[in-house]
Amino acid sequence: MPTTPPKIRVTVWSEFRHEKLNPKVAALYPQGMHQAIAAVLAQHADFAVRTATLDEPEHGLTDAVLDQTDVLTWWGHLAHGEVSDAVVAKVRARVLEGMGLIVLHSGHFSKIFKALMGDTCSLSWRESTDKERLWVVNRAHPIAQGLGAYFEIPIEEMYGEPFGIPTPDELIFISWFTGGEVFRSGATWRRGHGNIFYFRPGHETYPTYHHPQVQQVIVNSVRWAHSGVRIKDAGPNLLPLEPLPVDPEAAARSTVGHR
Amino acid sequence: MPTTPPKIRVTVWSEFRHEKLNPKVAALYPQGMHQAIAAVLAQHADFAVRTATLDEPEHGLTDAVLDQTDVLTWWGHLAHGEVSDAVVAKVRARVLEGMGLIVLHSGHFSKIFKALMGDTCSLSWRESTDKERLWVVNRAHPIAQGLGAYFEIPIEEMYGEPFGIPTPDELIFISWFTGGEVFRSGATWRRGHGNIFYFRPGHETYPTYHHPQVQQVIVNSVRWAHSGVRIKDAGPNLLPLEPLPVDPEAAARSTVGHR
Amino acid sequence: MPTTPPKIRVTVWSEFRHEKLNPKVAALYPQGMHQAIAAVLAQHADFAVRTATLDEPEHGLTDAVLDQTDVLTWWGHLAHGEVSDAVVAKVRARVLEGMGLIVLHSGHFSKIFKALMGDTCSLSWRESTDKERLWVVNRAHPIAQGLGAYFEIPIEEMYGEPFGIPTPDELIFISWFTGGEVFRSGATWRRGHGNIFYFRPGHETYPTYHHPQVQQVIVNSVRWAHSGVRIKDAGPNLLPLEPLPVDPEAAARSTVGHR
Amino acid sequence: MPTTPPKIRVTVWSEFRHEKLNPKVAALYPQGMHQAIAAVLAQHADFAVRTATLDEPEHGLTDAVLDQTDVLTWWGHLAHGEVSDAVVAKVRARVLEGMGLIVLHSGHFSKIFKALMGDTCSLSWRESTDKERLWVVNRAHPIAQGLGAYFEIPIEEMYGEPFGIPTPDELIFISWFTGGEVFRSGATWRRGHGNIFYFRPGHETYPTYHHPQVQQVIVNSVRWAHSGVRIKDAGPNLLPLEPLPVDPEAAARSTVGHR
Repeated sequence: MPTTPPKIRVTVWSEFRHEKLNPKVAALYPQGMHQAIAAVLAQHADFAVRTATLDEPEHGLTDAVLDQTDVLTWWGHLAHGEVSDAVVAKVRARVLEGMGLIVLHSGHFSKIFKALMGDTCSLSWRESTDKERLWVVNRAHPIAQGLGAYFEIPIEEMYGEPFGIPTPDELIFISWFTGGEVFRSGATWRRGHGNIFYFRPGHETYPTYHHPQVQQVIVNSVRWAHSGVRIKDAGPNLLPLEPLPVDPEAAARSTVGHR
Repeated sequence: MPTTPPKIRVTVWSEFRHEKLNPKVAALYPQGMHQAIAAVLAQHADFAVRTATLDEPEHGLTDAVLDQTDVLTWWGHLAHGEVSDAVVAKVRARVLEGMGLIVLHSGHFSKIFKALMGDTCSLSWRESTDKERLWVVNRAHPIAQGLGAYFEIPIEEMYGEPFGIPTPDELIFISWFTGGEVFRSGATWRRGHGNIFYFRPGHETYPTYHHPQVQQVIVNSVRWAHSGVRIKDAGPNLLPLEPLPVDPEAAARSTVGHR
Repeated sequence: MPTTPPKIRVTVWSEFRHEKLNPKVAALYPQGMHQAIAAVLAQHADFAVRTATLDEPEHGLTDAVLDQTDVLTWWGHLAHGEVSDAVVAKVRARVLEGMGLIVLHSGHFSKIFKALMGDTCSLSWRESTDKERLWVVNRAHPIAQGLGAYFEIPIEEMYGEPFGIPTPDELIFISWFTGGEVFRSGATWRRGHGNIFYFRPGHETYPTYHHPQVQQVIVNSVRWAHSGVRIKDAGPNLLPLEPLPVDPEAAARSTVGHR
Repeated sequence: MPTTPPKIRVTVWSEFRHEKLNPKVAALYPQGMHQAIAAVLAQHADFAVRTATLDEPEHGLTDAVLDQTDVLTWWGHLAHGEVSDAVVAKVRARVLEGMGLIVLHSGHFSKIFKALMGDTCSLSWRESTDKERLWVVNRAHPIAQGLGAYFEIPIEEMYGEPFGIPTPDELIFISWFTGGEVFRSGATWRRGHGNIFYFRPGHETYPTYHHPQVQQVIVNSVRWAHSGVRIKDAGPNLLPLEPLPVDPEAAARSTVGHR
């Protein structure tokens, strides 16, 4: 009898501030964007989903929660500066050990994304009446499963190049915008043992997280980001594995380590 | 009449502590490792070379110095923690604008390298009697010019995989060590507009910076890292470049920016 | 009730000549290397395994077989030149549509690998008494699941750098050899919609395919290479998706296509 | 007294058929597109430029010419099939040894580009009234020197994703088209020791090769592609560099080589 693999434990994190401040956002996402995203994921039997938000203690990302998180999704915008450095350091350490991270939209400027990219993470933007068309440049990638050659979002905030990111390990989407811009809208990187995916769409005043292809990409990306490993940064045995030349003076001072 | 291009302005930075503490290191590098490296570079007419060290004010890396630095080389080991966060932030900002950075040996664990990589930058090591043989896996790369298929360093500290770095943009050297280890010994990345090269050899108690191929690689890498650009992180015009659909309500709220 | 996903259909291809010519090889692999590899895969419930060999009609790779192959593994050595160009063209077309391909050991010089890499695929080699130690430089990769920091093969043919391959999309293993060489022993590329993995070990006169970690890597790589897609190379609709400037002369000559 | 480095010897190859068949093309390029491109390059003192075309003996690419070519540029369209396989094989061999190759526009479907990419090289296209805007996603790259954040071509043939290419080593340009498409318009790869750059613009019925930024990119790319090496595919010494375990039987059969 085949055994069922353990569920992928996803924590959907969101700032959850726009929803309280802007009735338009509240109308689109009455329970918050995190609940909308979590509900999408919860329809899939292979996920065990929880949420966490900025104003909870430790932003909802306690050690107990992180210990039980295989993949973390991140949406923030207004309040990147309010995310505590201690929590960022903990999340970063978990990613380096193997936790997956999905960074959504304005999360490009979050502390955690900037810390993992080591780059400016800057971009150009315009909140206006653009259409976004996402072209799939890597259709065989697990994150693109179930999509066609492209999909469209009727109205979205524009993000434009130059996007200040390291060369992606894999580029999956490139967006076309009505106003004349392009953007690398979906890209992956590995840091330590953790898989990271950045996905552009998701402006809070538009119903983007109700869009079926956007939902499909998020579902796919969580499955892809789940590495199944959690490797503490401990080195292998550093005694030589092969005989070294004999040199008594050198041997006397020989030391080893892992840093 | 052809004009001579302006010289590449190189600042050779070093911690300059081992040389004061360990007579063996002082014997190898009487003026300090930075002076040994600077002397190698100064033999080439296309370089204008200066040095800077940890114990100078602002570690010798004032705005005036950084304004006149096209490429910075970095060696540190004992005192990574003493490098001020303010100087690291300034150096990082310059790299993102286009200054080249050559990180040498134990500089893998410097604040500046970790900040730009966003990774653990950890590795395994053994100070013993290993031989290192560096195989060139990208012989057409500018950094490998003048080398053969491999070169050897008779005795060096061992650094072994796993090396906690992002996927290099380009991998140039892989080292073989007597004791049974391998290491990605030369690799490049771009962050913002800045070219970064990490080069493994250079343990302070060995005469590595007197080794001709090691010197050749450092010379080559400085030339390669010189981007010739210094681009402040300012976005393009974000008014739409093409006509957008008319929607008075949306147009009224339209805002643009660069972050 | 959860449904079982369809099995991954693997075809294990081998030249199957050494086994008939060299008693040492026949002793190690009485049914042929392909049968040894197939037996390993067949232990896993998610695989449906068949084999094919050079001396069968169409080398065992008829359209009917390829239509039912999700992932193809390839071992050849003596008789690369006997593989028909027509079969190579068919296999190449299938890979570009999404079939996975695992190229083993001396398959580095097969027609199919060279056609997909577009590079020399050359390397240095020595059949002698080397030990091989494979260091895992990407431990979170699906192909490295279940391995530690490294594993060893007590005796193997040496393959050394330079290895004439395009920059891998992902580098997973680097080998150390007793005689002083290194090699990029496990690497991935995508061509069209097909995932390709090259894995170095597997000299016919050694019991390499009975080695548990080598078996683990092959099993992992078949799962990884299975893309789940088969996309014929047909372009999207090329009528403009957005209005173009009106220019009757140009419009009169407007043509579209996909090539 | 500084010595002048030797000139970069460029051969500009073109099919030179449209110009003879279509008066519109002849009006734009009276001497042929190759002469227009050559004239641009010839304005720079560091280049020594010649041309070659399809209908010359050996397509103008004799051994003598190739022996004196550091970088080859390639434009073809109507007559890819008329390029002899022998010439393609020779050009491919030279690229693998270190000759640079710049592939222009419809050259994406040339035999030489397909042979070096190992991929479909397919794309979608529309000859209509599109504007093309090329966004620079790697402004510090030598190929982008002197450009701003983007440049525009008022009317061009559209090429759209999916573009069937391997993951570029470096992505430099992404194009936006009026009709709603995007395209990876400038990308680099290394094959063997040769640098390859693909650059999209250049439809024969438009004055694209008279466009100043297009000219700048071609000039930059020739300088970038010049590797300065020509390495015959000969391996290093394969006698072991380090002592091997003694095993008389194995030693007796030990053989080495390079393939």
